[in-house]
Amino acid sequence: MDKLMQDANRFVSDMVEGLVLAHPDLYAKVDGVNVVKRKEPLNGKVALVSGGGSGHEPAHAGFIGDGMLAAAVCGEVFTSPTPDMVLEGIKAADAGKGVLLVVKNYSGDVMNFDMAKELAELEDIEVETVVVKDDIAIKKEEDRRGVAGTVFVHKIAGAAAAEGKSLAEVKAIAEKVIGSVRSIGMALSPCYMPESGKPGFDLHEDEMEIGIGIHGEKGIDRKPVASVEAIVTELLDRLTAEVTDKKVAVMVNGMGGTPESELYITYKYVAEQLQAKGYDIVRPYVGNYMTSLEMHGFSITLLPVDDELVGYLDAKTNAIGF
Amino acid sequence: MDKLMQDANRFVSDMVEGLVLAHPDLYAKVDGVNVVKRKEPLNGKVALVSGGGSGHEPAHAGFIGDGMLAAAVCGEVFTSPTPDMVLEGIKAADAGKGVLLVVKNYSGDVMNFDMAKELAELEDIEVETVVVKDDIAIKKEEDRRGVAGTVFVHKIAGAAAAEGKSLAEVKAIAEKVIGSVRSIGMALSPCYMPESGKPGFDLHEDEMEIGIGIHGEKGIDRKPVASVEAIVTELLDRLTAEVTDKKVAVMVNGMGGTPESELYITYKYVAEQLQAKGYDIVRPYVGNYMTSLEMHGFSITLLPVDDELVGYLDAKTNAIGF
Repeated sequence: MDKLMQDANRFVSDMVEGLVLAHPDLYAKVDGVNVVKRKEPLNGKVALVSGGGSGHEPAHAGFIGDGMLAAAVCGEVFTSPTPDMVLEGIKAADAGKGVLLVVKNYSGDVMNFDMAKELAELEDIEVETVVVKDDIAIKKEEDRRGVAGTVFVHKIAGAAAAEGKSLAEVKAIAEKVIGSVRSIGMALSPCYMPESGKPGFDLHEDEMEIGIGIHGEKGIDRKPVASVEAIVTELLDRLTAEVTDKKVAVMVNGMGGTPESELYITYKYVAEQLQAKGYDIVRPYVGNYMTSLEMHGFSITLLPVDDELVGYLDAKTNAIGF
Repeated sequence: MDKLMQDANRFVSDMVEGLVLAHPDLYAKVDGVNVVKRKEPLNGKVALVSGGGSGHEPAHAGFIGDGMLAAAVCGEVFTSPTPDMVLEGIKAADAGKGVLLVVKNYSGDVMNFDMAKELAELEDIEVETVVVKDDIAIKKEEDRRGVAGTVFVHKIAGAAAAEGKSLAEVKAIAEKVIGSVRSIGMALSPCYMPESGKPGFDLHEDEMEIGIGIHGEKGIDRKPVASVEAIVTELLDRLTAEVTDKKVAVMVNGMGGTPESELYITYKYVAEQLQAKGYDIVRPYVGNYMTSLEMHGFSITLLPVDDELVGYLDAKTNAIGF
């Protein structure tokens, strides 16, 4: 698989440089590390920091902005950033009111963000952590991966922080989202690693993979490619078994190589089938939010919402990715 | 090539339905045709209408909104809409101050939009037309195709219309953009037609195509895949031979299947090389604006700007695609 790149070793650093060059008013790079921060420091607000391996753009640097993240730590592709990098992100973001780390549930991320938290506490920065695990492709709840639902955590907790809430309050609202947000994804084709050029999994032209991860992890079921209506039925059957509250925000998230036309075609069937099941889609989101390099596919995320969460979803942000 | 779709015959109508379902506050569908219009009618302003074949999303329906288009006519994939469809778009958009048709330079589009203009004039709607031809891959100026530069026409002429300018004035500002905007694109892989599943052109895994069109037209030069730096050098050599004004807006436009990471990597080299050539990038745009289904590649657009054009580029819009 060919890629637009100079050198696989500079994939992430070139991307971070390009991002900052393209949005000089929004972003600044932390010297010496692939950490992106707000150009303007926060004023007396709780700061949100997220990150992890790269390859999920616009996640996470694209969610930096008013009412979302204060910094994003950009590890190598599909590789957890080191604790030192996360510490740089924490220090760049902190505005004296504490930092909330939004971590996706992968062992490397959880360990490295935890170590960074300890290092930051030694420097007297107050840090709390939440771990997102919305991917229902994994049965055991504690093993579930963090995927596109993470974007709702960024948006909602970020809006609460922007409102001036305390670190404990922002953490509580993030936990409220994490407790109920659920996702599942599928792919028509895999992603390819920049370094090796190898696919995350082998998949025949006429096969699809249900329940994929966002790091090239293969799914839980492989079958012949079906119509989008049938695919949506299968994914929604799994999701609605877990999400029984009927007032929801919905995200149809592209995996990076999916044309926008296909995402909107997919959304039509998602909307029709959810309505037929008695769901009320209060806020729909369609686009690329949490991708996996050039993977062709999508995920569906359901988030039960009340007036408080809708208010935070609607709050203004200038983040380019939302 | 597999696609997320129900039936190739419903590709465009399903997409239009999904778009309107996902953005009910912004969009409405015109009954019986694949024409999308503003939900709220314009008030006493010149209306911009664009469109053409589908497969270029977010173009053109994604550019409907305050300060951009009033309606978009969505032909079948890579197929010009009929004059009747364009007429429906004109009638849906007109707010009594006249309609500017923004047409990309393809013979079918030019003919059908012209016929629609005549039909609308019979119904006493004042209509003017501009034809965008920014693709320098084609040598003869009158044969040049309209590609990503069209988006700058939508934005700038749309902002002028929103300011209350007359139809003649809006047309003049559109012509000013068209006179100087230039683009060229490349692809690492082709796009595939929904109906036939066939690629627009055959391309080996380790080859790339320079100067591609946005409808599966092959390029003007095929060669082994190069580093992004070398690709950017080649495209910019061609562009800067034509665009000699040094104060520019730049668009690095993804072709539909290009991950955002690669677009920002590309932008880094575009920015560095333009700067080295003495250009001042006043406004950079990086993202998917004018795509070609799932094609993996990008185009670069250069637009010389003065204070007037920068003001229109910066004017507020709620269009989801800009």
